[in-house]
Amino acid sequence: MRPDPGEADPLNDVVAWRDGHIVAIDQTALPGEFRVLHITTVHELVDAITRLAIRGAPALGVAGALGVALAVRQGAREGWRSARLETEVERIAGARPTAVNLRREVQAAAAAIQQGPAAVEAAAAAIRDTVIGASRHISERGAGYLSEACGTRPLTIHTHCNTGALACLGWGTALGVIRMLHERGELGKVIVDETRPLLQGARLTCWELGQLGIEHYLTCDGAGPFLISQGLADAVVVGADRVAANGDVANKIGTYALALAARRAGIPFVVAAPESTIDEATESGRQIPLELRPEDEVTHVLGVPAAPPGTRALNYAFDVTPAELVTAIVTEDRVILPGRDHCAGSPHPLRQRT
Amino acid sequence: MRPDPGEADPLNDVVAWRDGHIVAIDQTALPGEFRVLHITTVHELVDAITRLAIRGAPALGVAGALGVALAVRQGAREGWRSARLETEVERIAGARPTAVNLRREVQAAAAAIQQGPAAVEAAAAAIRDTVIGASRHISERGAGYLSEACGTRPLTIHTHCNTGALACLGWGTALGVIRMLHERGELGKVIVDETRPLLQGARLTCWELGQLGIEHYLTCDGAGPFLISQGLADAVVVGADRVAANGDVANKIGTYALALAARRAGIPFVVAAPESTIDEATESGRQIPLELRPEDEVTHVLGVPAAPPGTRALNYAFDVTPAELVTAIVTEDRVILPGRDHCAGSPHPLRQRT
Repeated sequence: MRPDPGEADPLNDVVAWRDGHIVAIDQTALPGEFRVLHITTVHELVDAITRLAIRGAPALGVAGALGVALAVRQGAREGWRSARLETEVERIAGARPTAVNLRREVQAAAAAIQQGPAAVEAAAAAIRDTVIGASRHISERGAGYLSEACGTRPLTIHTHCNTGALACLGWGTALGVIRMLHERGELGKVIVDETRPLLQGARLTCWELGQLGIEHYLTCDGAGPFLISQGLADAVVVGADRVAANGDVANKIGTYALALAARRAGIPFVVAAPESTIDEATESGRQIPLELRPEDEVTHVLGVPAAPPGTRALNYAFDVTPAELVTAIVTEDRVILPGRDHCAGSPHPLRQRT
Repeated sequence: MRPDPGEADPLNDVVAWRDGHIVAIDQTALPGEFRVLHITTVHELVDAITRLAIRGAPALGVAGALGVALAVRQGAREGWRSARLETEVERIAGARPTAVNLRREVQAAAAAIQQGPAAVEAAAAAIRDTVIGASRHISERGAGYLSEACGTRPLTIHTHCNTGALACLGWGTALGVIRMLHERGELGKVIVDETRPLLQGARLTCWELGQLGIEHYLTCDGAGPFLISQGLADAVVVGADRVAANGDVANKIGTYALALAARRAGIPFVVAAPESTIDEATESGRQIPLELRPEDEVTHVLGVPAAPPGTRALNYAFDVTPAELVTAIVTEDRVILPGRDHCAGSPHPLRQRT
């Protein structure tokens, strides 16, 4: 189902504050249905986060900050004491334990509680604006970098997973770069990996690209590296969940194979991510813990069994791409060239601005 | 459903001749159900081939040869004239246009028609024996090669798609090599790519490995190269649909990414395939036509839509791995080392026996 044509840009409502409550796109309903959630209680917000209706690190951070404003409103309505408010705020912060952004932004908004409800709402709005602003800067810087690095027009970009407004708000990261190339008239088309096991590429990225009117083609994850070897893409652009101090990049499983193929094909492999994903406390990718998720995400597809009952699976959700395979990391502040710096012998390219 | 425990080896019935008709495992029912088809007419055989109940190039060749014997029996029963028999034989040969083995083996069995029904049945049985014998020789030679090349025990082997008895009869090719390592007590476990879009790895290879009592773990195609980079596998072993004269290997989409990862990890990338897949008339992989299959195989998974309606897809069914990334090609007759020979500057390594 398409969104109501009366709405100018449905992607504005990924996570937003409206009339004293939170509105959010229910990402579990996509792409079959466009459903906007109206969240008026902490319980509803925690439920939306837990069942992945809201997902993506930056989007979760914004949802958490707005959630503090929501808790303050609900507390005033229901006469909560401050201890109850603290408990409810902590429930939001802990709703997705792996998302560092969620707890960080909840704490940032909660710091304004002493100054009253209006201050909390202003703090949450400022956090949302900052996240959206960063995505715009990443998009502009990334498009500029690729435009120069590739030279040819129109560009075909290969991408993986979902890194657009649904995950990041605003323009997104890798998908924001693609959108900016499109706005500049420099984009031909996008090749999208389906991104098993949870199919975020097929379900969400294809939906976003459709909304933006950008020509795109879905492909199986196993096909991506071969398509790159055949010259179908001018560059690979992906997001990142965490970047180590030496430039190693943790991202959705399947990223490493694309980086290998891009290197062999001689095309840029570009990571678009906010500064907040750069973790200077982690020396290299070897120190990044790799999350093993439930096996049934692999043995089943969209809930349907694909393998014999009892089949065991290895379900690593993220992989690590070594810095030497990364052409550039584009953030809201800078372009880092880990591959080059790595070759120059620097152990910590991210500590040097370019 | 497990097969009837009274049957010693259900994999013997992939495609076989019994009591004057063909028995075959219905591969569309796996892994949910083990169903043996009893095929008594040409119409039933063509239907089984068309709907992929029988698949895999060697298995199709055997089905075609046995199909000629079936047509002769049916013709005798129903009083067909020779023109009708010819038409029916041609229907079998053309049931899967892309499978060269099917037409070749149909023609080989049909050459015996003049000598009577018993001669046709003997010819078909001989073709089946040859295919099964070749698979055994490939399995033994491949296990011996890997045992020597890897050195360590027990071995972890990474494989892709389905290359066992279901596709090849007997021991299979890559899966036969794995089975032989298991029999020799040298195998630890197997990592199986799910092999999107049709999930032959998840559906069929996991089922066969379960039947054989071999420890195995399913993984998403995008994860395979990363698992290899982390040292989880000692070797990659795959089959081949076609091998060009220079050693380039066409195989199920997803193979190329594994070869890239194996090269970087420094582990053997081994192709196990019968001599019949070596196509000396094709100079290199560039001349191998790449089949683009229906887009809905990618936009849907197990029949369930994964992407928004109208999403376009690139569905290349096969990829080409350049010879220089192939450590060894093991056939029933020889071990070819394209990577080595390539490095030595030979344009046509397959024309030199090692």
